[in-house]
Amino acid sequence: MVRSRPFAVTSIDSVADGVHFELSTHSPADVGWKALAQALSDLAAMGADAGEAYVSLALPEGFDGALDLVGGMEELASTAGATIAGGDVITAPTLVVSVAVTGWADDESKLVGRDGAKPGDLIAVTGALGGSAAGLLALHGETPADDELTRRHRRPLPRLREGAALAAAGVSAMIDVSDGLAADAGHIARRSRVQLRVELARLPLAPGVEDVELAATGGDDYELLVTVPPECRDEAAEAAELTWLGDVRAGSGVALVGADGSPRTGLRGFEHR
Amino acid sequence: MVRSRPFAVTSIDSVADGVHFELSTHSPADVGWKALAQALSDLAAMGADAGEAYVSLALPEGFDGALDLVGGMEELASTAGATIAGGDVITAPTLVVSVAVTGWADDESKLVGRDGAKPGDLIAVTGALGGSAAGLLALHGETPADDELTRRHRRPLPRLREGAALAAAGVSAMIDVSDGLAADAGHIARRSRVQLRVELARLPLAPGVEDVELAATGGDDYELLVTVPPECRDEAAEAAELTWLGDVRAGSGVALVGADGSPRTGLRGFEHR
Repeated sequence: MVRSRPFAVTSIDSVADGVHFELSTHSPADVGWKALAQALSDLAAMGADAGEAYVSLALPEGFDGALDLVGGMEELASTAGATIAGGDVITAPTLVVSVAVTGWADDESKLVGRDGAKPGDLIAVTGALGGSAAGLLALHGETPADDELTRRHRRPLPRLREGAALAAAGVSAMIDVSDGLAADAGHIARRSRVQLRVELARLPLAPGVEDVELAATGGDDYELLVTVPPECRDEAAEAAELTWLGDVRAGSGVALVGADGSPRTGLRGFEHR
Repeated sequence: MVRSRPFAVTSIDSVADGVHFELSTHSPADVGWKALAQALSDLAAMGADAGEAYVSLALPEGFDGALDLVGGMEELASTAGATIAGGDVITAPTLVVSVAVTGWADDESKLVGRDGAKPGDLIAVTGALGGSAAGLLALHGETPADDELTRRHRRPLPRLREGAALAAAGVSAMIDVSDGLAADAGHIARRSRVQLRVELARLPLAPGVEDVELAATGGDDYELLVTVPPECRDEAAEAAELTWLGDVRAGSGVALVGADGSPRTGLRGFEHR
């Protein structure tokens, strides 16, 4: 039983072995961390404060990592100010971890959706991009081993503090970069019925990432992509470390453009009409 | 975003193909119904009002029943006064459905746990027992086909109205009969540190059920088992149709006794120390 704050937002996410992770490259603790991080990142993108997490573990017979898995989750929960408040364990043929998280806000106007971007708004992103995707390539031996990049892949940090601060600063739309920047920008474009115009050369590359395509399309960075009304620009820049990427225009879809404004096409996840 | 009521309770449950159901005997709509029913039943057992459900579907490649599954869930949600408010769909090797439900209460004292049973309390159960287990036997062809019993297995009805009314009537502990009456009585006994003494001959058998063992140990009936302080007896009996089963004593575990008070042993799920 939880004493409520005035507004609740809840998000549920699942990860499955062989689809979102592989036990050959992820420890059970990594899996627990990732499952919770993904759910908390949704709260961050709404500007909500992290509250309680409810966990359902579907465990194959003989899987002996359940305690480690929950341990990884507890580790992130304590970092993020969340509480693991309940759960359920079932047997299933495959390891599937589902996490529902509830976040809270005292004021409805402090919560941000994906549907508020308007022409004239600026576009920005927290942190750096492509690190998680690059870490996955390193884990799979496709690029040289890199502890920092693989850590970014295995132990992503949901941007809860930044999300709440950006919401308070008046951003008009916000989403976490889970599907890749181009795809997630597309979600805002669709929901807000606008075009997001992003200059590829401005994308902040994570240390060790040289490929702008990885930064534009790689998923699981859990940075926050925001649209910012011009009058909120300074306040947003104080709320979080941002890189300014472009602007919102009338239209639809996402335009990924070169420094000269020429459209770039052919990127995975690219969406442009 | 949900405008809160003062107290929130959240429960998460999952069901997996081949473990909690089989697509050979359950339609996708049955699976959706069952997954939500199980989660809502947890709210019923706390006396909370059903609020929002958040659903995560892990679907195998080629599974084409997702819309039907959600349709079955929607059907129960509208009956139960719940709202399917969010969800997530992933690909996974096995069909796993996870449902997190949030229930609400205006007053902390209206919520009931498993830990409040006291010696001298009476024990009662709503509805009738064994129907779901008997329905499963019929589905598997081990007993003659019986539409009513198989419906009870496939489409259980969480006792939300009864749970809220029983909580308001002052029951001291409450649990839904999901593992079977004997096992679930054991959960109350353990959490309340008392003994639950149940007279087997009093168990209300579902129509078509003749075996008292099925009624004592069969799961998934989703009836509510309550302990009732003697002074609340009349109010509880007005709150829901109850069958009185026995009483709470000092001690531990569950004593299933014959009409003459002699202990019955050897039942599956039987717990007695």
